[in-house]
Amino acid sequence: MGLVVQKYGGSSVADAEGIKRVAKRIVDAKKNGHQVVVVVSAMGDTTDELIDLAEQVSPIPAGREFDMLLTAGERISMALLAMAIKNLGHEAQSFTGSQAGVITDSVHNKARIIDVTPGRIRTALDEGNIAIVAGFQGVSQDKKDITTLGRGGSDTTAVALAAALDAEVCEIYTDVDGVFTADPRVVKKARKIDWISFEDMLELAASGSKVLLHRCVEYARRYNIPIHVRSSFSGLRGTWVSNEPQGDQQVEHAIISGVAHDVSEAKVTVVGVPDKPGEAAAIFRSIADAEINIDMVVQNVSAASTGLTDISFTLPKTEGRKAIDALEKTRSAIGFDSLRYDDQIGKISLVGAGMKTNPGVTAGFFEALADAGVNIELISTSEIRISVVTRADDVNEAVRAVHSAFGLDSDSDEAVVYGGTGR
Amino acid sequence: MGLVVQKYGGSSVADAEGIKRVAKRIVDAKKNGHQVVVVVSAMGDTTDELIDLAEQVSPIPAGREFDMLLTAGERISMALLAMAIKNLGHEAQSFTGSQAGVITDSVHNKARIIDVTPGRIRTALDEGNIAIVAGFQGVSQDKKDITTLGRGGSDTTAVALAAALDAEVCEIYTDVDGVFTADPRVVKKARKIDWISFEDMLELAASGSKVLLHRCVEYARRYNIPIHVRSSFSGLRGTWVSNEPQGDQQVEHAIISGVAHDVSEAKVTVVGVPDKPGEAAAIFRSIADAEINIDMVVQNVSAASTGLTDISFTLPKTEGRKAIDALEKTRSAIGFDSLRYDDQIGKISLVGAGMKTNPGVTAGFFEALADAGVNIELISTSEIRISVVTRADDVNEAVRAVHSAFGLDSDSDEAVVYGGTGR
Repeated sequence: MGLVVQKYGGSSVADAEGIKRVAKRIVDAKKNGHQVVVVVSAMGDTTDELIDLAEQVSPIPAGREFDMLLTAGERISMALLAMAIKNLGHEAQSFTGSQAGVITDSVHNKARIIDVTPGRIRTALDEGNIAIVAGFQGVSQDKKDITTLGRGGSDTTAVALAAALDAEVCEIYTDVDGVFTADPRVVKKARKIDWISFEDMLELAASGSKVLLHRCVEYARRYNIPIHVRSSFSGLRGTWVSNEPQGDQQVEHAIISGVAHDVSEAKVTVVGVPDKPGEAAAIFRSIADAEINIDMVVQNVSAASTGLTDISFTLPKTEGRKAIDALEKTRSAIGFDSLRYDDQIGKISLVGAGMKTNPGVTAGFFEALADAGVNIELISTSEIRISVVTRADDVNEAVRAVHSAFGLDSDSDEAVVYGGTGR
Repeated sequence: MGLVVQKYGGSSVADAEGIKRVAKRIVDAKKNGHQVVVVVSAMGDTTDELIDLAEQVSPIPAGREFDMLLTAGERISMALLAMAIKNLGHEAQSFTGSQAGVITDSVHNKARIIDVTPGRIRTALDEGNIAIVAGFQGVSQDKKDITTLGRGGSDTTAVALAAALDAEVCEIYTDVDGVFTADPRVVKKARKIDWISFEDMLELAASGSKVLLHRCVEYARRYNIPIHVRSSFSGLRGTWVSNEPQGDQQVEHAIISGVAHDVSEAKVTVVGVPDKPGEAAAIFRSIADAEINIDMVVQNVSAASTGLTDISFTLPKTEGRKAIDALEKTRSAIGFDSLRYDDQIGKISLVGAGMKTNPGVTAGFFEALADAGVNIELISTSEIRISVVTRADDVNEAVRAVHSAFGLDSDSDEAVVYGGTGR
């Protein structure tokens, strides 16, 4: 039995009862002979409450102090969890990100891990302790300031520690039973995936699946750390994410792993761009200089009569204002006609390595959408993914139609076993 | 203008409004040309709420983890305070006890400061910043674990930093206007003291005055750091505590500085102790071995006929059970008759360096008590203090009588200017 890293999210440790339940689960792993490292998030709504307080004292909270504030949340949950474990008769020690050796760059509020030096964790394990580590936080290499890793940072902490400690597996405990073939809130017949490759999981995460964040999966793939996503409430086997399936992990020989959707994006269309070299580069340089991440980019062939073309791209709605401002400043230099902004869009993506060798997938996808009466506005593909943009109102119907057309529906009407909160 | 250390207690930063008010006060000090270091406690009831949570997950919270938990409170308040200051257009940086160089021993929950190495604070000040430091916490020298300093620890943090940084003054902001000649809740005519010596303040603190804790005053005296106790609500000049009065600090040429009282103690009487060398030592060795701090000790001459004497001492009520258990174990070895335990007592103390040269003080004290019909049960004196133990029910009446008899009453009926909460 080797070393296991377990990560528990805020909903799993929302109150004293949750902390005691999680403590029991951790002790069970220890009793089974594992060395156990636990990464924990802040309790329930703690982080949101701290953000509220910050906004009350200052409209623009500053980076360094904001990180100092937010990291208090994990400090509370990890200390309580260590106490609860001791109360079950096992030894536990809690460590801040800094104490655990999570070294980051200095970009406050969304720092990146650049090294993990878990000497104190290793010592704690060697002495027979369970090690509890604060998720979401680290310490900057140059200034020794407290940093936070941004959204989903605790998952990344867990995977990074698992890599540094050469763990057997990184278990991500959450409030759902695993990764599903579609969002179970939209598709009642969505099935839990038993095993999925890193590549497919990366595409699902990039396409709107919320269970695991892209950054965390990327990290796990780079260091080849199997992830096991499972419920802290039910304790059932969840979804394994790894290079290759192992043991009795079932691999569905479906062409498609799942259907993801995303309604958090908006579409910007730059109308009437002169069709000559350097124009697209100038547009996206102005977007990049404003530090805006974009998603899909589509350009059609230009109409021969005008020599003008339209370029569309999608980006998070929250960045919309900034993008429009950045583009307006370059309008005369680039010489486009106008800008169109549309935040009533949705994106539906079909993901699966099987589509590489199955030429009918694209056609089947579009037929399913057509049968459901859904109009396609943009199309973008990768080797193992097809994404389309539609009206936001059409998204749920489109997801259900595609899920069914590719044979992903489960036999039962209600496949989802929710844990406690039923997020 | 030199360096000022300001300390704000939990009631001063209980909510966003309080934090903004305190931020303004800090910025005012900075505008007046001072370098400013601020020590801050946890917001309002935060610490109590964290203790509640700990008790819910584990009946006996462990030392190291308990400290990790509690220190989250100051992390929140200091980060918010730094943000509020930045919002007023001034630069502020917050530091944990560890970052501020507060080095302690490893006694969790009541660690002692053994060194202060405020290199990062000095750098922050040199760069023109206001430095905000978490009170109540440090880092252990040997294991680099987070420690807490126990009750009143933030005051000690402030004085220790003031000493290490060679500050002009350590300002302790609280929710009352300063140190009074008696507890204003008991004596309506109590007066605010303008200046008091370290020695008198130490005796008042040891005798039940709650405004400053003994440990903090002791530290300030050792390093000769003047303390200014004042209200964070009114902003009025409060009480200066120092070796010698300076400038326009008024020194009342009264014999007595103040009257303190304490109803938190109990009295233990060891009855029928053989009056021979080593008996008292054996009794107090057994108490000391149980790590119980005692206060007053009184032994009368033994009755010649029996060769037996009674020894009484007082101690915190919370330690009563432990003391009785410890003594019972030694009963046969020491050979005393019985133990009496009484927790319905109160202590009244008269403090003032003037009593050294005024032989009538003791007599006047006892006369005042007699006139008020208060019976004296134990007497103990130091060079600048007389304390008596009475029935708990008599304490308030006794304090008022003594306060009046020694001319401490103010002219107005209601001398106290309370701040916000009116603690």
